[in-house]
Amino acid sequence: MTIKLTIDCMGGDHGPSVTVPAAVNFVRSHPDAQLMLVGIETAIRAQLKKCKALDEAALIVVPASEVVEMDDPVEVALRKKKDSSMRVALNRVKEEEAQACISAGNTGALMAVSRYVLKTLPGIERPAIASALPNLAGYTTMLDLGANVDCEPQHLLQFAEMGHALVSALEGKERPTIGLLNIGEEVIKGNDTIKRAGELLRTSTLNFRGNVEGNDIYKGTVDVIVCDGFVGNVALKTSEGLAQMLAGIIREEFGRSLLSKLMALIAMPVLMRFKKRVDPRRYNGAALLGLRGLVIKSHGSADAYSFERAIKRGYDAVKNGVLERLVRAMEENASPLEQAARDANGAGYASPAAGQPAEPYAAQSSKA
Amino acid sequence: MTIKLTIDCMGGDHGPSVTVPAAVNFVRSHPDAQLMLVGIETAIRAQLKKCKALDEAALIVVPASEVVEMDDPVEVALRKKKDSSMRVALNRVKEEEAQACISAGNTGALMAVSRYVLKTLPGIERPAIASALPNLAGYTTMLDLGANVDCEPQHLLQFAEMGHALVSALEGKERPTIGLLNIGEEVIKGNDTIKRAGELLRTSTLNFRGNVEGNDIYKGTVDVIVCDGFVGNVALKTSEGLAQMLAGIIREEFGRSLLSKLMALIAMPVLMRFKKRVDPRRYNGAALLGLRGLVIKSHGSADAYSFERAIKRGYDAVKNGVLERLVRAMEENASPLEQAARDANGAGYASPAAGQPAEPYAAQSSKA
Repeated sequence: MTIKLTIDCMGGDHGPSVTVPAAVNFVRSHPDAQLMLVGIETAIRAQLKKCKALDEAALIVVPASEVVEMDDPVEVALRKKKDSSMRVALNRVKEEEAQACISAGNTGALMAVSRYVLKTLPGIERPAIASALPNLAGYTTMLDLGANVDCEPQHLLQFAEMGHALVSALEGKERPTIGLLNIGEEVIKGNDTIKRAGELLRTSTLNFRGNVEGNDIYKGTVDVIVCDGFVGNVALKTSEGLAQMLAGIIREEFGRSLLSKLMALIAMPVLMRFKKRVDPRRYNGAALLGLRGLVIKSHGSADAYSFERAIKRGYDAVKNGVLERLVRAMEENASPLEQAARDANGAGYASPAAGQPAEPYAAQSSKA
Repeated sequence: MTIKLTIDCMGGDHGPSVTVPAAVNFVRSHPDAQLMLVGIETAIRAQLKKCKALDEAALIVVPASEVVEMDDPVEVALRKKKDSSMRVALNRVKEEEAQACISAGNTGALMAVSRYVLKTLPGIERPAIASALPNLAGYTTMLDLGANVDCEPQHLLQFAEMGHALVSALEGKERPTIGLLNIGEEVIKGNDTIKRAGELLRTSTLNFRGNVEGNDIYKGTVDVIVCDGFVGNVALKTSEGLAQMLAGIIREEFGRSLLSKLMALIAMPVLMRFKKRVDPRRYNGAALLGLRGLVIKSHGSADAYSFERAIKRGYDAVKNGVLERLVRAMEENASPLEQAARDANGAGYASPAAGQPAEPYAAQSSKA
């Protein structure tokens, strides 16, 4: 089976100069992949020429005349730029000509346009952003990382269900363990929303292991950690900041004198292995979950290697049937209590009305 | 002037075997300090004997017959153990026999007992936990780190005022810069509470620099970062977890083979300098701000070096008049708008009724 993906070539800080070489490298190492390169045709062809890939059969150029800029407000992306590379790429997924879309574009716009074009899955009120973070043993999948700044308990339950489906599909784990991000292990910890989410999770059919704390992300205590998008985004960015500071201090200390530079040179093989293991580029590619189609969001500042990792994530998700698993899991996992919680919350399960994405997406991080 | 501090010798994972040697070392290097060692007399004297410090004039043993255990619920600490080392140590501060109390005891209990014994300052509804985190240039003071799981906008404003007073006193900065932790720099980001807090901060007399993100903590973008206790606690614990994982991977990579062990040996001076710079023990000692007295909370797992750093933090706070500065700042910084916000919020400025600490303290992290 050919895996067909659409690439929003204009998204991200660097646009086609990063996205096109990444796509070229990807199809050359994945013969069963076909990529549609969406965007300004001349810009894409110029990059294909540079990569000597104008004749690459697995790459199809799909023209789109507009570009969603990294600082465009959601409304502009949604209402003004109807022929943007982002929108056209998502449309191909909607029309089932491709199975997933990969974009490094502005997160708020990508989520809003995805939601508008693809609609949400039955049983999902709020799509979420999920990503894999490294831990000592492997990786922890965490969601939401910034799509929803305010969450109700049932949203956190839905995030858990989606995380369960994602990890069980991608890692072949039948019952991945789930943790609820909190400020203590005891059930009495946290605010009211968290406590009620804990109750829903405990009575669900998920493999719920209770509360976890921030340090559990990197310990690998559970397979999936759920949290609201505000907390998730802060945890993610805090991690980025700390990692950058530590890398800066290592460079500073090894660069301090001729002698320490010599030490760095000698220890280089180990330092390089360390760097490779913790390289955040390896973990690029967050999944927008809860939509009727797969969307992978790359970091805006991704380089070609990093963007290729995001394409790989989309490819793996398609190959492992993440979307199908998600749909099935939402049906299977829905316990009577969960159903009750959903019913109690009223409607919201229908797709949002055209042109009216739910409030949260107007207020999210633009560069997750 | 003699700086008088009380030490809750029974708190923390290790009790007197850590707190007493730390106190002994501290008075030996600070001739103007006098420490009251509060707790089970025999246990304290046994440790003093070990340290050959039974005759140390600057150390006064103050007996207390009970111990607040690390897993004691807040109610037990507050209502059952009235002769606990924690309570007796705080009473000495209340009675003005000491100027600050240092404890490694359970955070929830320490905050509740402190609040009950010392009461809150005028103009403060919710005391907060503040700590200094290292950044590339120096350090960032962050609050709240876990005392308040739900905050209203005016609480975040009060945290900013307290952070301002703390940093201006300790670092001699006249107008420390303040940032509001959010998931994007733009004013439209975040949930409703955050947006309203941003408005209050913008119209305050503080040196407010707008929204900051998680990575700004370690960049050192501003001197003080304010956030609610849930988010702050997650950011802090996430940082701890990431730092531990990275340290684990460095050890693993350098220990992989005889050759890499040799490389580690050669690079040791640089690795040690790096380790020293980022050693979390150096930053031990969070301030419980907003009370009519100074309280410093040490990490529960602190060793003697680390606990000594917490004592130093209390000593510095007294020496630099943090409490006086806090009282003055609360009066000076209160703009008409802030006053209005406080008035609109109704009462709450009086100290809580005896035995009735506000709800949040029952629901906080026990081991910050």
